[in-house]
Amino acid sequence: MQLKLTSDEVIELRQGEDINSALKRVGIYLVASCGGKGLCGKCKVRLLQGEAEIRSQAKLTEQERESGATLACQTFPVGDVFVDIPKESRLVVGDKIAVARTKDLAAYLGSYGVAINPVTKRLSLELPPPTISDNISDLERLKRALEEKGLSGMRFSYGFVSTMSKTLREAGWNVDLTYVKSHDGPDEAIFLSSPQACTRRFGIAVDIGTTTVVVYLVDLLSGEVVDTGSTYNSQMRYGDDVITRIVQATEGGELQTLREAVVADICTIVDSLRERRGISRCEIEMVALAGNTTMAHIFWGLDPGSIREEPYIPTLNYFPGWKAGTAQLSVNPQAPVYTVPCVASYVGGDIVAGVLASKMHRNEEMALFMDIGTNGEIAIGNNEWLMAAACSAGPCFEGSGVRCGMRATSGAIEAVKIDPETFEPSITVVGAGRPLGVCGSGMIDSISEMFLTGLTDRNGKFIRGLSSRVREGEEGIEYLLYRDEKLNRDVVLTEADIENLMRAKAAVYAGITTLLKEAGFIMDDIQRVYIAGGFGNYLNIERAIILGMLPDIPKERYVFLGNSSVTGTYLCLLSEDLRQEAERIASQMTYIELSVSRSFMDEYMSALFLPHTDIEKFPSVASLMMSRMALKKSWPFNP
Amino acid sequence: MQLKLTSDEVIELRQGEDINSALKRVGIYLVASCGGKGLCGKCKVRLLQGEAEIRSQAKLTEQERESGATLACQTFPVGDVFVDIPKESRLVVGDKIAVARTKDLAAYLGSYGVAINPVTKRLSLELPPPTISDNISDLERLKRALEEKGLSGMRFSYGFVSTMSKTLREAGWNVDLTYVKSHDGPDEAIFLSSPQACTRRFGIAVDIGTTTVVVYLVDLLSGEVVDTGSTYNSQMRYGDDVITRIVQATEGGELQTLREAVVADICTIVDSLRERRGISRCEIEMVALAGNTTMAHIFWGLDPGSIREEPYIPTLNYFPGWKAGTAQLSVNPQAPVYTVPCVASYVGGDIVAGVLASKMHRNEEMALFMDIGTNGEIAIGNNEWLMAAACSAGPCFEGSGVRCGMRATSGAIEAVKIDPETFEPSITVVGAGRPLGVCGSGMIDSISEMFLTGLTDRNGKFIRGLSSRVREGEEGIEYLLYRDEKLNRDVVLTEADIENLMRAKAAVYAGITTLLKEAGFIMDDIQRVYIAGGFGNYLNIERAIILGMLPDIPKERYVFLGNSSVTGTYLCLLSEDLRQEAERIASQMTYIELSVSRSFMDEYMSALFLPHTDIEKFPSVASLMMSRMALKKSWPFNP
Repeated sequence: MQLKLTSDEVIELRQGEDINSALKRVGIYLVASCGGKGLCGKCKVRLLQGEAEIRSQAKLTEQERESGATLACQTFPVGDVFVDIPKESRLVVGDKIAVARTKDLAAYLGSYGVAINPVTKRLSLELPPPTISDNISDLERLKRALEEKGLSGMRFSYGFVSTMSKTLREAGWNVDLTYVKSHDGPDEAIFLSSPQACTRRFGIAVDIGTTTVVVYLVDLLSGEVVDTGSTYNSQMRYGDDVITRIVQATEGGELQTLREAVVADICTIVDSLRERRGISRCEIEMVALAGNTTMAHIFWGLDPGSIREEPYIPTLNYFPGWKAGTAQLSVNPQAPVYTVPCVASYVGGDIVAGVLASKMHRNEEMALFMDIGTNGEIAIGNNEWLMAAACSAGPCFEGSGVRCGMRATSGAIEAVKIDPETFEPSITVVGAGRPLGVCGSGMIDSISEMFLTGLTDRNGKFIRGLSSRVREGEEGIEYLLYRDEKLNRDVVLTEADIENLMRAKAAVYAGITTLLKEAGFIMDDIQRVYIAGGFGNYLNIERAIILGMLPDIPKERYVFLGNSSVTGTYLCLLSEDLRQEAERIASQMTYIELSVSRSFMDEYMSALFLPHTDIEKFPSVASLMMSRMALKKSWPFNP
Repeated sequence: MQLKLTSDEVIELRQGEDINSALKRVGIYLVASCGGKGLCGKCKVRLLQGEAEIRSQAKLTEQERESGATLACQTFPVGDVFVDIPKESRLVVGDKIAVARTKDLAAYLGSYGVAINPVTKRLSLELPPPTISDNISDLERLKRALEEKGLSGMRFSYGFVSTMSKTLREAGWNVDLTYVKSHDGPDEAIFLSSPQACTRRFGIAVDIGTTTVVVYLVDLLSGEVVDTGSTYNSQMRYGDDVITRIVQATEGGELQTLREAVVADICTIVDSLRERRGISRCEIEMVALAGNTTMAHIFWGLDPGSIREEPYIPTLNYFPGWKAGTAQLSVNPQAPVYTVPCVASYVGGDIVAGVLASKMHRNEEMALFMDIGTNGEIAIGNNEWLMAAACSAGPCFEGSGVRCGMRATSGAIEAVKIDPETFEPSITVVGAGRPLGVCGSGMIDSISEMFLTGLTDRNGKFIRGLSSRVREGEEGIEYLLYRDEKLNRDVVLTEADIENLMRAKAAVYAGITTLLKEAGFIMDDIQRVYIAGGFGNYLNIERAIILGMLPDIPKERYVFLGNSSVTGTYLCLLSEDLRQEAERIASQMTYIELSVSRSFMDEYMSALFLPHTDIEKFPSVASLMMSRMALKKSWPFNP
């Protein structure tokens, strides 16, 4: 039984295997937000020839069904089949993601008032070669030389000792010792090297996002970011969000597979950076990494199961200083790996690193930190207190759970304007090609425009009869954003999509108000809002305020941080002081569990309107509505 | 091309392969003292059919050649061959070796005035299960409980953390924590267990000898030796002595193979002890081991190369507390492994453990400690000073380099008396079977009898014409100890064998006198002589004095210790205090490198006589010679 593809590939099918599994088995990954359960409707393929048992078509439109589309994960061939995989269904792991400017980072580190002071230290040692009258062991010889330099009590791991003697002899007893200076225990020797080899000293700062992996290659002496690389987290083939990953890791028994997937992503980047810069493995002597709590657990091969189940407990938040060899990273196997500490199951090291990078924990002004990526985490506070929460916005801003949703990559509609009279849209697309779907910022634009033009009411429901673009679709009422005549394919936004997005924005806004209430403050007390995460780069603040996702405070208080997780990790890579600062952020941050908060539920329900049940909370939106109303007769509701 | 055996086995031969290599490849090991170089003449097989290129037959007698005997390592078949492997050529790895009585060991430990105090400690913890309002991570919960018990600053390795959460949940938050109490650094958590599982607490004490491996299974609470096991060190298939092993490990690139061989030996014993006693892997929570410096290096996979080359430097003498998992022992992978420290390249942890077991380092009286096993190590001193040396006696007392030499196993002639008139021998054989060869004690008996009866002169050369048993053999003059008419096979002792043994005994005696001279003492200052090692069990002190191997001091000063290496290791397993005592022994022991000592060479040359050039050093032997002379006309020389 064979699965033939239009790309001329042929895959031998196993008995009872669905098309998605067969493709995955040979390394072809489809978009599968739900992890292959027939729920997301993203793994569409076209069955051109052959018979198959199709379990569910619920996520396909009539039109799609007629054109031969089927969900790969729900299609079980009963004989040879011939299948076409459309471009938008394929997950192209390894796509490059834009990385923010990094040349000013060393100066930024300096602005913290700390010196470049990585925990790994290097020391030149000239040992007298052994003789019959001075025949102590190699390790004792090394210890004696260290004691002469005032360093005693150092620890020597198996990894160190097992390669030590060879290096001593090859280097003619003239060696460099690299060791870890500990602030709360004995120092630890990590490796010896010849002064001729392994001369430069590099570290890597790694941000393990649920969606993307970013690596900075850093010169440990100058602090310069020598190069950067990024890729999608190839765990994505097992689902888009952390919950799906946890389920795959625990119930699916795929913990090691997920671990190896992300480790391979990091190694692929590191190897290409090393090759480009002519750097040996040995020369990368330190690693710092941050990720959300689930990503950090999976990276270290720790079962994330209990993160998902009430009362949501991680194995650990503070990671001991394990070695790169344990994680199987393609750097010096003895390199210590620093994992930025997490706060709780849904507020991870990426947020701690982000807060560190924002400096909000050092300033008197009260600030709000938001990272609206695959999850949605927020923190508020200042130099005296910090609080954080995860508002489970879900990954819909990244296109998941949205009919024509996609990430902000080539072909994504990223900006939308709707003419208030004709209700015709004008769209901006990422890249030069034809529109394939709509990304987070495109959705926010669309919904705020629909609302302002009166195409939807404050519940996000379409007003019928205003535009021919509002029509009955396969999944209820939808708005036609773009029609591809040639491919007979439409990009639409359905009422269900809008509902999804409103739930997400309501969760974010309710999270902010709940945290503020817990701390005894009001919205206007927020002096600064830091927007972190890849999504932040594309976010139109005004539109997000109209949507009711962001608080209606002066725009000049908003600051975009970009990938603050990798910035904070970079800071921790280079400075022991800033690591301790990160630990203090993590330990001082009060975590609020919103999923069991009564107050959060109330705030959430109130936020399920455009922009909010209580319009007085959004004065700028109210005045915008007023002026629109004045301009337009068809304004559908009272403010 | 096939190699057929009389045992009906058939082995496919590779191109250019010798018979020894082919047999080794399929797991049939021959005695091969030289490691397969054609030098020891031990890997004799009979070529019954077929053609082969034979490189060297130097080590075979004419008679053996005629009977079809050939050295397996020197025989390269050129077509199908049919071969018989005689019993004495086969190395039966897994033979059981006698282990000394162990039931009194716990009382012996008590005689040191220390309590049973293993470094692993166990603590019961009842943790409150996590709730939404008490949702700290598992590790923080554990740390909090430890702090409540006054234990803070504990270290948590990757091995601990990676299994911790599962155990906490399976055990319902009611767990036993096993940790290592450190006297010079932070404590370290090693594993968690449910109070229902892993209830008993065991450790193993392991003696890795060049020839044998001995394991004691010890109850850590009572100190009782629950069971013991032993086997030959299957590294023997690569040669008998440490030098051959080092060459195999370094030049032969077989370090990992040698390491795996001895680890497999230990695991085989441990697994059978565990099965016999119904003990799980988890319940063996600690390991202590001792071996000579080469054995300890190979066990840990450390290149022993520089041990062999002047100035004879080991990688280390003090082994950090690595884990059983690193060594791949079949016990709890988190069990700390204590390696008894070594002194120098040729005075290892077995000697340090032996000195600890002898208590000589605690007593005022000056004592001599001797371990005449595969190597020959000696130590002298008391509670104020200690000196040690290796006298490179070589393994000839274990049968290596001796024409009919063999170990003291079934079939070995272990005692010999020679009639002073007829020169006919009466022999005692280990086990019930017919004599196959002669072991160390049999050789010492033989030579001292030959000397006392006047069959040899003081140079160890045979006096011709006294007995028909002294005859011209293939390798010069020899004495016929036993003739096997049925098999047409003789057990002989050649003049070359006697020369070998005299070199060995001279090295031992010269080692003792050199150490004494260095320390400024004379032989009679020795108040106690401790004889350690398996060989000691069979040694006839009087005969060894006549030979001039042991000092001629009153017999009542001699004490047999048996396997003092495993006894000392047992003590270190159970007591942190005695570990520190072992470390002090190792650090205080002055090592004398005899191989470059002028004084040793002089003493050695003087000792190459029976019993010694200076007969006044052996008054009891002199008087024995006098009385024999009075009895017998044929006494050949002046005293």
